[in-house]
Amino acid sequence: MGGDHGPPVVVPAALQVIGKHKSLCLILVGDREVIQKQLPSGYDQSRLIIQHASQKVEMDESPSQALRVKKDSSMRVALNLVKEGKAQACVSAGNTGALMATARFVIKTIPGIDRPAIISTFPTITGRKMRMLDLGANVDSTAENLFQFAVMGSVLASAVDNIKDPTVYLLNIGEEDIKGNEQVKQTSQLLSTSNKLNYMGYIEGDEIYNGKADIVVCDGFVGNVALKTSEGVVIFIGKLLKEGFKRNILTKIAGLIAWPVLKSLVKRVDPARNNGASFIGLQGIVIKSHGGAKIPAFAHAIEEAIIEVDKNIPQQISAEVERLLTASPNKNEDNSN
Amino acid sequence: MGGDHGPPVVVPAALQVIGKHKSLCLILVGDREVIQKQLPSGYDQSRLIIQHASQKVEMDESPSQALRVKKDSSMRVALNLVKEGKAQACVSAGNTGALMATARFVIKTIPGIDRPAIISTFPTITGRKMRMLDLGANVDSTAENLFQFAVMGSVLASAVDNIKDPTVYLLNIGEEDIKGNEQVKQTSQLLSTSNKLNYMGYIEGDEIYNGKADIVVCDGFVGNVALKTSEGVVIFIGKLLKEGFKRNILTKIAGLIAWPVLKSLVKRVDPARNNGASFIGLQGIVIKSHGGAKIPAFAHAIEEAIIEVDKNIPQQISAEVERLLTASPNKNEDNSN
Repeated sequence: MGGDHGPPVVVPAALQVIGKHKSLCLILVGDREVIQKQLPSGYDQSRLIIQHASQKVEMDESPSQALRVKKDSSMRVALNLVKEGKAQACVSAGNTGALMATARFVIKTIPGIDRPAIISTFPTITGRKMRMLDLGANVDSTAENLFQFAVMGSVLASAVDNIKDPTVYLLNIGEEDIKGNEQVKQTSQLLSTSNKLNYMGYIEGDEIYNGKADIVVCDGFVGNVALKTSEGVVIFIGKLLKEGFKRNILTKIAGLIAWPVLKSLVKRVDPARNNGASFIGLQGIVIKSHGGAKIPAFAHAIEEAIIEVDKNIPQQISAEVERLLTASPNKNEDNSN
Repeated sequence: MGGDHGPPVVVPAALQVIGKHKSLCLILVGDREVIQKQLPSGYDQSRLIIQHASQKVEMDESPSQALRVKKDSSMRVALNLVKEGKAQACVSAGNTGALMATARFVIKTIPGIDRPAIISTFPTITGRKMRMLDLGANVDSTAENLFQFAVMGSVLASAVDNIKDPTVYLLNIGEEDIKGNEQVKQTSQLLSTSNKLNYMGYIEGDEIYNGKADIVVCDGFVGNVALKTSEGVVIFIGKLLKEGFKRNILTKIAGLIAWPVLKSLVKRVDPARNNGASFIGLQGIVIKSHGGAKIPAFAHAIEEAIIEVDKNIPQQISAEVERLLTASPNKNEDNSN
């Protein structure tokens, strides 16, 4: 029921994905009548199941309000299904804050992880994928939180992309040790003393798209600014290109000739093609789609969920966290350095 | 002596700018011999003066080290000239941290301003300029620091761009009041209760280039990440375009035909064309050029200094700060709300 478009996007995306994955079964959670209107008459009722929910969380509702008052919201019911093992993952385009708060409340975090984080994939110059976290679940993260983010990101990159020893970087405003805020300096110390992670040091904003990092770790405030600013620049340049090529008949012809190149560019940087951020650190799989996602982008978010189910990400993280966190120095030992 | 290129960029840029501004006099501070090598034999010695300095601050030197050990560095000598009133502004492509620390030590901040900030101009979709601060002078800023940044940015936009009541936004990760970290929430409260600033509320990263904001205020860590990430995206897209148009003979022809459009795009987003960040909040004018600036970009930074001298920015800020800060509620009053 969430996102800018609701069922008119979510239902066709679901139909598209079950067409592709023959053993996939999707549960559409929300207002039964509204959902049914989007379904063709002869749809496969054994693989597309409607689960009615009488409420929905508004996009501007506060997380605490949603938690308290919306106990039969589509979001809450979907997360309950994951909790109860009736679904292997939840995909939502709804209110991010409410989804995160409800997911934490219903599904709980993995033991050893204090806070879940939002992680997503970014394109890079080399074509290699980069994953960054946290993208906005946590503000005012501690060094311990950031260390745990590094562990979780590392596990995800290993499991999903089959990268051995993914390179982990810490987002900072200078490469020298002297720069950065307290949070970053302390995190770097924690990461440096852990020999289980492939920690490479600091990375600056202008390098995150150059392909050298598999994982970029940062506080959720900073990560969200980096993500959204990037989107802003892409929109800006896209608009300048469009206007430039529309200027007169000659530029219009140039635009037509240049179209294949521009199209492949759009393909590479379009955030929709990387749609589907994971709420990592929970005991279940929750994927957040961009609120403005259209059908192919929402389908991509469902695909991301399928991969994480196949790879059993929460269990892998749980195992790695146990191995890594017990092996890494704790805060007290670190302070004695 | 600073930056990636040193005198081979700075000296030709100086020659270019004195050619344009007939009443301008520039003092080149640094190693006399090295500077002289870059000067043509018949240069105007009345308008281009060499001031010898026996030391230089390295790009990776710590600010405290530079302050303590490099008392005859080109940077220190140039800032002394400003302090003594022998120069009206200092322009440097050197070590940002050392320049800021030395500038604070030598020139001092304006009364009522706790910390200077780095502010620079950004292009936007509408063609309207946007200025963002802080871009990296301060990490872990308090709400009071951010409030002062808003005041200074507002004054600069009014004075330099002749904007009446510049719109001031606070960079945040959501437009709703409930989102954001403590620092941002407290700053918003301070800004909301000040009726002297045209405070418009929160802005997200994806909106900073849409032209609605004249001033965007944020902590230096966040601002630096936003700035550098933007540069990273521009480089990324630039590279994709270049590679795309180079692919084969057809795309090469398309690239040639599309060249005027692409060139005007580069012109709009090229950070070099907005080169020259101001260290705002000091009792003198200090302009920081990008370390990698080439001749036209460094010349642009000198031009920025000229404008700020013409407009007498430090004095205007000082007057406005006095007016605004005395009129605005102090922290205690705000807490009683």
